[in-house]
Amino acid sequence: MIDLFLVGIGTGDPEHLTLGAIRTLEGADLILLPRKGGEKADLLDLRKTICTDVLRASVRVAEFDMPVRDASGTYLDGVNSWHDAIAAEWTRQIEAHLPGGSGRVALMVWGDPSLYDSTLRIAERLSAAGTQVRTHVVPGITSLQLLTAAHAIPLNTLGGPVTITTGRKLREGGWPSGAERMAVMLDGDCAFLELPRDGLHIWWGAYLGMAQQILDAGAVAECGARIREARGTARAEHGWIMDTYLLEYR
Amino acid sequence: MIDLFLVGIGTGDPEHLTLGAIRTLEGADLILLPRKGGEKADLLDLRKTICTDVLRASVRVAEFDMPVRDASGTYLDGVNSWHDAIAAEWTRQIEAHLPGGSGRVALMVWGDPSLYDSTLRIAERLSAAGTQVRTHVVPGITSLQLLTAAHAIPLNTLGGPVTITTGRKLREGGWPSGAERMAVMLDGDCAFLELPRDGLHIWWGAYLGMAQQILDAGAVAECGARIREARGTARAEHGWIMDTYLLEYR
Ligand SMILES: C[S@@+](CC[C@H](N)C(=O)[O-])C[C@H]1O[C@@H](n2cnc3c(N)ncnc32)[C@H](O)[C@@H]1O
Ligand SMILES: C[S@@+](CC[C@H](N)C(=O)[O-])C[C@H]1O[C@@H](n2cnc3c(N)ncnc32)[C@H](O)[C@@H]1O
Repeated sequence: MIDLFLVGIGTGDPEHLTLGAIRTLEGADLILLPRKGGEKADLLDLRKTICTDVLRASVRVAEFDMPVRDASGTYLDGVNSWHDAIAAEWTRQIEAHLPGGSGRVALMVWGDPSLYDSTLRIAERLSAAGTQVRTHVVPGITSLQLLTAAHAIPLNTLGGPVTITTGRKLREGGWPSGAERMAVMLDGDCAFLELPRDGLHIWWGAYLGMAQQILDAGAVAECGARIREARGTARAEHGWIMDTYLLEYR
Repeated sequence: MIDLFLVGIGTGDPEHLTLGAIRTLEGADLILLPRKGGEKADLLDLRKTICTDVLRASVRVAEFDMPVRDASGTYLDGVNSWHDAIAAEWTRQIEAHLPGGSGRVALMVWGDPSLYDSTLRIAERLSAAGTQVRTHVVPGITSLQLLTAAHAIPLNTLGGPVTITTGRKLREGGWPSGAERMAVMLDGDCAFLELPRDGLHIWWGAYLGMAQQILDAGAVAECGARIREARGTARAEHGWIMDTYLLEYR
């Protein structure tokens, strides 16, 4: 039996790690460390830093290249066969490093494993493929929590609901009637600029928790274009960007 | 100038604390520790345990009685004057313990300060009342993250939106059209039982992260009554309950 621990590590600063995350990583027999190539090298380095600088025990680490997503077919087919390929790679690594077929395997997950992350869906495939596995989740600080912390604001209005969504959904569906606040992730290109601007307020953050962190906030009518420009410049400079934001009509 | 640190501590287990939270608490000149009375004594003890067992530095702690909310007028008036009274009490404590009017003051906030918590709103009142204050937020693990971790499930469907709301709003507004998943907090009495049951799935958790933790999940048609009963029994036994859940129509 494999015990698989999906460990949320927050968004870039080892200070986001919880005591539980550290204890779980230190107690693992094997840490799987995917190499994602190109723009994400910074993030691999960060995970390595956690292994070398934060853990007080030395844990065996299996670094491997992440399979590449096939973008030729439909989006969902592409994602599904990509997840299959990743699960197969995990299995190969586990078999190579834990030939007895039992032990504690840990994976470091960006932010929290519950939020727009595929690790839980990939883990399900292991059992489907015949590996005896029990999955455990250790929560981590999400990028949204770093956003609200950096701006020192609540996520919700007093007793009000908040919807978390993606740039794609916001673009497709616009602002849902009745929504008070929307938090947007996975937005490749400032979907908020397509919403009616009258009364629209934004709190935006990129590279949250990292040395490159950028923040901006205000009425979209006034700061929207500035954010798009800052985003473009930062992306060109660093080769990649991750950003998220909270919206409210006032 | 007072630097006020609102430090998320997770939901009951010192293992939820981040390295950043611990460092912030250890570096404080004063920790404010509200006593909430009655059913919440367990939670005060927990905060005290953090001070005595987790922090490696000894920090001055100011324990004080939380003002009581006046429930006679309208809900919003009651909340507003209650927040005023709490801010006044913080100010008194800070003046008594940091007579120079400057220093680092920390407050331990349940879960994460961004989520259905009034500490940020109370902090705003300090500046309004003339105290020079800079507010900093240190994020913590929320009860929702403990819920999804305990069930080892994602919060969102693949690329789908999720709405976080309160029991009160769910009762008033029902299931918003277009919503895929709803996470519900601050529900005094199983608001999910008032929704149409056909296809409704629930993942429920109480006392998450604590020794008393209870979990249940399934089709509401099948487990809804069981959850209500477990909730009532646990509440009677412990004298208080905190629970939260995630809903989906399938
Ligand atoms: C695949 S999702 C993973 C989210 C992650 N599980 C979490 O809990 O934050 C990636 C998205 O998260 C957001 N994100 C992640 N890290 C971020 C950071 N450091 N700064 C800003 N946004 C970030 C961005 O919206 C990005 O498109
Ligand atoms: C005033 S809100 C505070 C939420 C907190 N800031 C957080 O991040 O989880 C209190 C509500 O959070 C949820 N909650 C807090 N702690 C919990 C726990 N240990 N188990 C289950 N639900 C909890 C319940 O829905 C409760 O009504």
